[in-house]
This record gives sequence, C-alpha cells and structure tokens, in this order.
Amino acid sequence: MRTLRLGFIGTGLMGTPMTRRLLQAGLDVTVWNRSPAKADALAADGARVAGSLTELTRSVDVIMLCLANTAAVESVVFGDGGVAETGRAGQRLVDFSSSDPAATRDFAERLSHGCGMAWVDSPVSGGVAGAEAGSLAIMCGGTADDVAAVEPLLEPLSARVTHMGEVGSGQLTKVCNQMVVGCQAAVLAETVALAESSGVDATRLVEALSGGFADSKPFRILTPRMAAADYANPPWHLRTLLKDLDMAVAQSQRSHSATPMSGLAAQLLRAQATRGHAGDDPAILVESYRQPQG
Amino acid sequence: MRTLRLGFIGTGLMGTPMTRRLLQAGLDVTVWNRSPAKADALAADGARVAGSLTELTRSVDVIMLCLANTAAVESVVFGDGGVAETGRAGQRLVDFSSSDPAATRDFAERLSHGCGMAWVDSPVSGGVAGAEAGSLAIMCGGTADDVAAVEPLLEPLSARVTHMGEVGSGQLTKVCNQMVVGCQAAVLAETVALAESSGVDATRLVEALSGGFADSKPFRILTPRMAAADYANPPWHLRTLLKDLDMAVAQSQRSHSATPMSGLAAQLLRAQATRGHAGDDPAILVESYRQPQG
Repeated sequence: MRTLRLGFIGTGLMGTPMTRRLLQAGLDVTVWNRSPAKADALAADGARVAGSLTELTRSVDVIMLCLANTAAVESVVFGDGGVAETGRAGQRLVDFSSSDPAATRDFAERLSHGCGMAWVDSPVSGGVAGAEAGSLAIMCGGTADDVAAVEPLLEPLSARVTHMGEVGSGQLTKVCNQMVVGCQAAVLAETVALAESSGVDATRLVEALSGGFADSKPFRILTPRMAAADYANPPWHLRTLLKDLDMAVAQSQRSHSATPMSGLAAQLLRAQATRGHAGDDPAILVESYRQPQG
Repeated sequence: MRTLRLGFIGTGLMGTPMTRRLLQAGLDVTVWNRSPAKADALAADGARVAGSLTELTRSVDVIMLCLANTAAVESVVFGDGGVAETGRAGQRLVDFSSSDPAATRDFAERLSHGCGMAWVDSPVSGGVAGAEAGSLAIMCGGTADDVAAVEPLLEPLSARVTHMGEVGSGQLTKVCNQMVVGCQAAVLAETVALAESSGVDATRLVEALSGGFADSKPFRILTPRMAAADYANPPWHLRTLLKDLDMAVAQSQRSHSATPMSGLAAQLLRAQATRGHAGDDPAILVESYRQPQG
C-alpha cells in the first residue's frame, strides 16, 4: 500500500487537514486545487503539487476528491481536462464529498464505461476537528474489492470505515442521517412551542430531559436556541437540512419507498425558507408555531 | 423536613424501590396499596402500613402517589374513602404517576377547592433501575412554594428535580419527551426501509452513524431491530407511544399550538395498531414501508 501514489483534489477546509494526515502517515500524495495557492501551501508538508488535473490523473493510482457539492464533483471529473479524460482502468476514485446518491451512481457508471476507473463514494462525518484528529466516520459505497483496496489508505483519516453496499450507498447513508436530523429539527420546533403555549418553562427542557430517550445532539443544540428565540451566529443552516430532506424525498420516489415524516418535514422547512429564512438556524422553525405576542 | 410524615400510595414496580430509598434516608413513611401484600412487604424495611386510604390520609403531611395511569389516580384521590374525602389544607400531594396533563390540572383544582390540599405533579424518568439507584429525573409542576416544600423529600429519589411551571407542567414535559421519541420511531422506520430499498446494508446503520447527529437511545434500540425484522421480547410497546402522541395532539387542540409531525406520527402508529400491532415493539413500524418479498 505504501507504494500506491495518491492524488488529492480539493484542499479546502476539510481536504487540507486530511491531506496532512496522509502525508504524516508516510504516503506519497500529489495535490491539486482550483485555487492553486491552497495546494501550494501543502508543499511544505511534503506534498507534490500538480500543475493540472491531467498531470495529477496521469501520475497517481488513487484519486481522492473532497469538494463542496455534486456540481463541483461533476466538473472536476467530467469537465474539460477532467479526471475522466486521462483516467485508466485499475485506477480508483474515492469521493469524500457529500454528493447526491443518484448522481453518484450515474457518475460511477459513466467513469467506468469511459475509462475503466472504479468509484468508491466515501462521505465523512466529524467536521474539521475530526479531519485534524483523524477520527472521521467514513461511510463507503462500492464493490467489496474496491472498498477493501482503498480501506488501508483511509486509516490515517478515520476512526471507523463502514462499507454500506454498492456505489452510492455511502451517500445514501448520509441522506439517512440527515432524514433523522431534519425531522428532529421539525419535531423540536413544535415541541418547544407546545410547551410554551401550555405553561411549561421551555428553557428548562434540556435540563429536564437530557440523558433520557429524547436526548440527542440536535436536541441539545436546537432546544435552548428555540426556547430563547436566539438565532444569532447559526452553527448550521436551514437550507442544508432542506436540501438533504429533498434528496430523501427524491430517493423515495426512485426506490418506491414512502417517507411521510421526511416529506412533511421538507415542506415545513420549505415554508420557512420561502419566508426568507433559508440561511438562518433551523431553530427558526419554532416561529412557525409560536403565537404572536401582544 | 425530617419531622414531616409521608404517605406513599402505590407500592408497585417503581413505588417499592422509591419507598425503600425514602425509608433508608430516615424518613417516616406510611404505605398503602390496593393489593395489601405489596404494602406489607415494606414493613420489614421500616414502613408503617395503613389499613385504609382514610387512615393514611389522616396520619401524614405529604401524600405521594405512584400509580399505573390517570384512572388509577382519579380513583385513589376522588373515589369512595379516597384522599379528597379526608384531606386537609396544608397537606400536599405529589403525583409520581405519568398522568394526563389536562386531567392533572382538573384534579388539582378539584382537590384544592374541595379540601385545600395542594398538588405537585412529578412524573419520573429512569425506570426501575433509576428508582433503585435514586437517580430518577423528576419534572415538577406546581407553585414555587409547593415545589420548594416537597423538593427536599425528593432528594433520596433523584439526581435531578426540575421545576417546569404551574400544576400539570411536569406531565406536559413528559408529553414533550414522548413527542420526540414517538416521532423518532416513525422517522427511523421510513429511514431503514429507504436504506434497504436503495441497496444500503441497513444492519450497518448504527455502526456507521453512532456518535453523530442522528444518534439517540431510540436510534440504537430501534434501528437494529427494524433492520433485522426482529420484534421478539419487545422492550416497549407501540400503544404506549401512540397514547402519548394522542395526548400531544389533544394538548395541541387545547393550547392552539400546531403539532404536524406528532399528528402524522400518531396516525402512522395508529395504522399499525389497527393491524393488530398495538402490543408489539414500535420497531414493527418499518413493515409499513418494507416492500413485500417474493
């Protein structure tokens, strides 16, 4: 495995610490970034810096992507001078980005058909802190052979790599995660408003219920912000959860599997997005139910 | 506080270990139970055993109830020979049972109007293990004076006592807890089914997502049972969650506060209850979405 040459595309907030950890593990890493300065910064850590996507693709065995969204992945892989143009059979692509599951399956098929390269979708969870500590949770989709081949390369990055099924299954697992989180946000909003309108001190719900069956990270983050109507410095955005819930609904149409709770939650979030709150904390959802003052 | 005489009504699965802890703390406790054998068993631990509800009510300062449901509370308080007949001003009633919030407010008013006795609703969370260890979470509803007066008596039982508001607020807080849990069950069902129908190995969801934002106690209990279609020895029953979600919807009507997610979850649970699954594990909900085999 030490003899495999790695390429890393997308050395941003997540990609930079991930690349550093691969280099620290003694791996041979070539980097490329759309803004060259972000790639150059890694030369001091021992990275080779490619002058172009073509140069990177030609010189490595495994290509890792860590990009902002599905469109960025499509552009880097299938755009002019992209990976697909010079890729070859035997190479593997590992996509750490959170991309659409259906697009991922389409990309994987096009890439395999075009140049014979294999795709392993590997979205991560754990944020920048997890990337720096090498404690990311990574959910993989791909053939058993392809996942097994790249798994040793993920070791410097991750506390846990889980193979979830065929290509796209990693991305689908992330959608599952977001169904639970997005619905949780919608439920907490109506729970806090009901508590308030029923004479319960909603600012004490976390104190009263933490450690029990209602407890979760979203519960601890959203409930106090909802109860205090404090939406400043949002740690996350309503539009992110809405995009993921919409992805869940689209997948429910494709796979003929009903998702009534996620479908309702998507529409409840959309109602607030329509009212100008897409960039706000999902905690704003409580305002859908709170009774107007005076 | 050590001079206050306590009465404990309902020495069942929860009430027995709670009474034992009060006795071990050196408190003077008189017990009564509808099945006398369960009260007699506590004599060896130092409890006085009352021959009747009337005898108990006359001889104590604070009356604690730990009963199965709202109907049992009503019968013990307002039935023939019940607490209301011989209660007096200055006495306080602490209801550890999980009772209906609106009924609780009605009971408190009737009791206060009838004999001047005060009501503190104090449903608990933590189960038999928490009762034995004295680590229950207790959510109180009542006036600040009444809650402050009984709080020292709750110390041997509880790691945390939270005053949530006026009478009924403790019960309402428990309803809030169950809204989150009941909706969680409904969401997990559609998530597991969507994962399966999309080619994801749903038996690996807990491994992939634990520790993250989707994690919770219901997530860890329900997801593997849903994925394995293993509904044997249910640790809890669908009908309990349905009853609590219905209580949430009833409260939303009373307090004019919309609860769309809980309302939908109640109907989704009812659909499975109607099909004969009221006494089953709520994990059975996944079968609403799972595609028929062969």
